[in-house]
Amino acid sequence: MDLIRTVDAMQTHADTARADGRTLALVPTLGALHDGHLALVRTALEEADHVTVSIFVNPTQFGPNEDYDDYPRDLEGDRETLEALGVDALFAPSAEEMYPDVDDAALFGPLAWVSVEKLDEHLCGAYREGHFRGVTTVVTKLFHACTPDVGVFGKKDAQQYVILQRMVETLLFDIEIVGVPTVREPDGLAQSSRNEYLDPDEREQATVLYEAVTAAEEAAEGGEQEARAVVRAMENALAAAPDADVQYAEVVDAHTLQPMEYLAPGQEILAAVAVFFGDTRLIDSTFVQVPRS
Amino acid sequence: MDLIRTVDAMQTHADTARADGRTLALVPTLGALHDGHLALVRTALEEADHVTVSIFVNPTQFGPNEDYDDYPRDLEGDRETLEALGVDALFAPSAEEMYPDVDDAALFGPLAWVSVEKLDEHLCGAYREGHFRGVTTVVTKLFHACTPDVGVFGKKDAQQYVILQRMVETLLFDIEIVGVPTVREPDGLAQSSRNEYLDPDEREQATVLYEAVTAAEEAAEGGEQEARAVVRAMENALAAAPDADVQYAEVVDAHTLQPMEYLAPGQEILAAVAVFFGDTRLIDSTFVQVPRS
Repeated sequence: MDLIRTVDAMQTHADTARADGRTLALVPTLGALHDGHLALVRTALEEADHVTVSIFVNPTQFGPNEDYDDYPRDLEGDRETLEALGVDALFAPSAEEMYPDVDDAALFGPLAWVSVEKLDEHLCGAYREGHFRGVTTVVTKLFHACTPDVGVFGKKDAQQYVILQRMVETLLFDIEIVGVPTVREPDGLAQSSRNEYLDPDEREQATVLYEAVTAAEEAAEGGEQEARAVVRAMENALAAAPDADVQYAEVVDAHTLQPMEYLAPGQEILAAVAVFFGDTRLIDSTFVQVPRS
Repeated sequence: MDLIRTVDAMQTHADTARADGRTLALVPTLGALHDGHLALVRTALEEADHVTVSIFVNPTQFGPNEDYDDYPRDLEGDRETLEALGVDALFAPSAEEMYPDVDDAALFGPLAWVSVEKLDEHLCGAYREGHFRGVTTVVTKLFHACTPDVGVFGKKDAQQYVILQRMVETLLFDIEIVGVPTVREPDGLAQSSRNEYLDPDEREQATVLYEAVTAAEEAAEGGEQEARAVVRAMENALAAAPDADVQYAEVVDAHTLQPMEYLAPGQEILAAVAVFFGDTRLIDSTFVQVPRS
């Protein structure tokens, strides 16, 4: 496996693989790889002949009060994991490589941004100002640096997954976005790099996120037609955890990410929750097809 | 020459040319081709093995009171011109191809945008709200559809040229931007599709734009150090045309597009003017290296 540190070297590496007739997949990550990431990598290995995993803790997708500085980093461990899986290239650029205009003293900060409007108005977007603009911008840069045919993302970050699909479609990227189902612990908790922040008691209570999205699934698939009732089912499940500080429990259209009053037959919806345990913010979600009958 | 109407067909065409080992250039235009465009095409033919010219009158770069509906269109004439020059592909997509999300009834309008901040604050950007966001968005889409190695643009659209260079650098496009000097009529007037809107008297007066940027050049190269004095030289030249309604005459740093009080030795500056004759808006500009001594 090649460890690649610069954009130029990555573009050359990708060009060479493509000239050899190979198809390319990219798995963008923030590192600190867990089983959820490994599921993405395995999907990528099935989808393409050549797999690049990027590890970049992207400053522009963290808010000023979020955990950018403390976000877990383990490049050496991640490297061994990816090598063992048969990944072809690990792209681990510096912030200077990814944001070449930040040190332009005359202007400050990144100048060029990619944004997807309206889809960031609800769910996490309502609480993490600028987060999705940071994500769409850095994913655009990673796509330009790694030039994949396929980009592999976790459906656990459901809003991100929908926004990136829309970005690729709208900006005419010649890239297919593949979504991988959420990987869970035996008790249902979605795998996340942030789970390691939880103390044992919080860890035990954290299963309510899974119970909430399961409750939403059962309600919607069971014929519930009022969005408010589906939300109530999630809220009831979350209430079982005394230390859960609920940020949101919402139901939106899976395509537009806008809320609705009534579930329409055949509509795909996204039911999602965000919950704090102390300073640790966890999310979970599910895509549900509303029955037609 | 192939006439290509869809993004998919264009991407396939470009992939095939690249697989043949050819380098690709793209010349994005709004059509109604004049000698200025032909200079871009000739440069592209020198720069790469395969040349695509795109013709797309992009709605998102026109303001609500601008000339989108009336903008000259002559696809058949343009096609003959390009065929004769030896262009390989003419990419002429519909608005639906370029903005696939516009007819999404639930959300209205394009959702995904590419923007370059700060560089659009002065010059044309101060008067054409949203124009450069429309340009950077459509050029990103054209780059994704045509996947060139080289993008060729006219320096006449000086602010656009600087913004696109910054966009490519910052978003890590693996594309080189090549700028082509302004092509002028024998009396100095910059070639523009909008010149045909001028009546004979306006046409005669329109040479003041060239005289203004020439005056700025002479002042800056002659050792003038106050930006205000360079602006005054431009304003004096423009005053010779009784029907000229000056929108702006400005001097900015060529890299940051921010105004300055004093010209620094060795600094590259951009002196630019925009002038209305009746409803017709003309622009001209020059990049000048301030002498070091």
